[in-house]
Amino acid sequence: MAKNKRSGFMTTFDQLQKGIRKNARSNDINSYLRSLTRDAISYLANNASIVDLTSKVTGKEYFSYSIDGTKSRAVNKLLYRDMEMAEIFLELLQSDEIRGNISSDDITSACYTITMSLACYIDITNKGDRQTPGTFFEYLITYMLTKHFKSDPSTRVRVDIGDDKVSLTMDLILSVDDDKTKYHIAVKNSTRERASEIWAHQRILDKAFGDNTYTGLFIGLCETKLDHKINEVTEICVPDQWRAYQQFLSALHTIYYVDVPRAYKNLNQKPPYIVVKQIGDFYYDVPQE
Amino acid sequence: MAKNKRSGFMTTFDQLQKGIRKNARSNDINSYLRSLTRDAISYLANNASIVDLTSKVTGKEYFSYSIDGTKSRAVNKLLYRDMEMAEIFLELLQSDEIRGNISSDDITSACYTITMSLACYIDITNKGDRQTPGTFFEYLITYMLTKHFKSDPSTRVRVDIGDDKVSLTMDLILSVDDDKTKYHIAVKNSTRERASEIWAHQRILDKAFGDNTYTGLFIGLCETKLDHKINEVTEICVPDQWRAYQQFLSALHTIYYVDVPRAYKNLNQKPPYIVVKQIGDFYYDVPQE
Repeated sequence: MAKNKRSGFMTTFDQLQKGIRKNARSNDINSYLRSLTRDAISYLANNASIVDLTSKVTGKEYFSYSIDGTKSRAVNKLLYRDMEMAEIFLELLQSDEIRGNISSDDITSACYTITMSLACYIDITNKGDRQTPGTFFEYLITYMLTKHFKSDPSTRVRVDIGDDKVSLTMDLILSVDDDKTKYHIAVKNSTRERASEIWAHQRILDKAFGDNTYTGLFIGLCETKLDHKINEVTEICVPDQWRAYQQFLSALHTIYYVDVPRAYKNLNQKPPYIVVKQIGDFYYDVPQE
Repeated sequence: MAKNKRSGFMTTFDQLQKGIRKNARSNDINSYLRSLTRDAISYLANNASIVDLTSKVTGKEYFSYSIDGTKSRAVNKLLYRDMEMAEIFLELLQSDEIRGNISSDDITSACYTITMSLACYIDITNKGDRQTPGTFFEYLITYMLTKHFKSDPSTRVRVDIGDDKVSLTMDLILSVDDDKTKYHIAVKNSTRERASEIWAHQRILDKAFGDNTYTGLFIGLCETKLDHKINEVTEICVPDQWRAYQQFLSALHTIYYVDVPRAYKNLNQKPPYIVVKQIGDFYYDVPQE
């Protein structure tokens, strides 16, 4: 790809970054997301070849984009769609008309397509950069949630420890309906060994402000791992650890994934009942402000 | 370095790894530790040059080993000693005669020298390998603790969740004195964003087996970060987050560091009173079995 094309892409990404900090639910954010998705999808379509991967996950198939031997992360074939789907979703998102006008499956596919096209673009054009795809997913989710709740995002809470007021950093804190409802929302591309932090933060909020003051959600992208040597895709899940966290640390209300890991799907069927759903369900579960 | 020299080094490392799994407190472990430390120190002395680093940590000075532009991690000048100190410590460790025969400061320096010489050797001869130095530190600590408590290491506990017995992985579980005393010991080179896991695991044990069943310790190496571009060393610490964990999640009994981070030193002076000490103090705090 021409250098100036990539530099244009990163300029838009910088604008998105600054925009999120300034006003996370402005229409500018929508245009940046649209522009980045369009550029990433068209770059991949015109320049990359498709490599089929071996899936070790029952019911899921994956491919990887590849240019000159550099491979992207694994992409779930069933979830990944096209620019048209992304456009429809972003359009409805802008006009606050998601619910009833697009199915949960299509919302989920659109989120997956937007996030993964950019991630694959970065994997290939700036090998080793894991931060840009990670923050991009956070920006998309922050835009979606702040629009939905008509609330500005915060990442800080102040708690009393001894005689001190201590400021703690969380992923996302949203105060809704004149502070009547509060959400603590962890947002991560994947959890790996960081899952305990989500339940630990929720417990801090429960203890510091009283149970049920903050509703705890976690929104994740996926838990896939691609072994680049043998082109094999697995899902890294620790359901027993999660059950222990939900039982002994705190109770998360719902966990939404864009690509729901198989091993977490049925955690709602026995104690301590962890509800794991696809991201599109969020719009049908939680009434809009 | 000649290829066969490095391959000899890694053969000894493999023997250490297998030895720890077979019998973590055998005298073989002591010989492997001694041999690896001797080889690493002499390799660095004969081949590497010393690069002075800019310290942003009050009261600490650092250098880095360097060969052909490849730099090792930052080494604390005051703590890093020589083979003689390492030998004295390992000798006393083997005969279970630490306490009273070597000061807490010298124990701490010996642990630092053993761990950092190997870490720097790996940084330089196998750039990007962070796993080997990490597991080496775990092996050293596992050897020290299992010797001290005359107890074999375990990493698993079984807890009841609903109708299930669920097996959870911890860093190190030691049962002492016919199960009368139990320790949960987290061992990590540095905590970064993984600190909450230590307190979360301790809480799971407190809730599943009753408060005070497991005494919680954390043993860490250091929290330094070297910016390779500008040769500047900082310590990455989050004392407020730690205080929130100790207040709202669980109470760790003591935290021992080899290179105690400045921002954690005085956490014992106000609630919730986190005790952070240098590793050498362990031998003077906890009576030997």
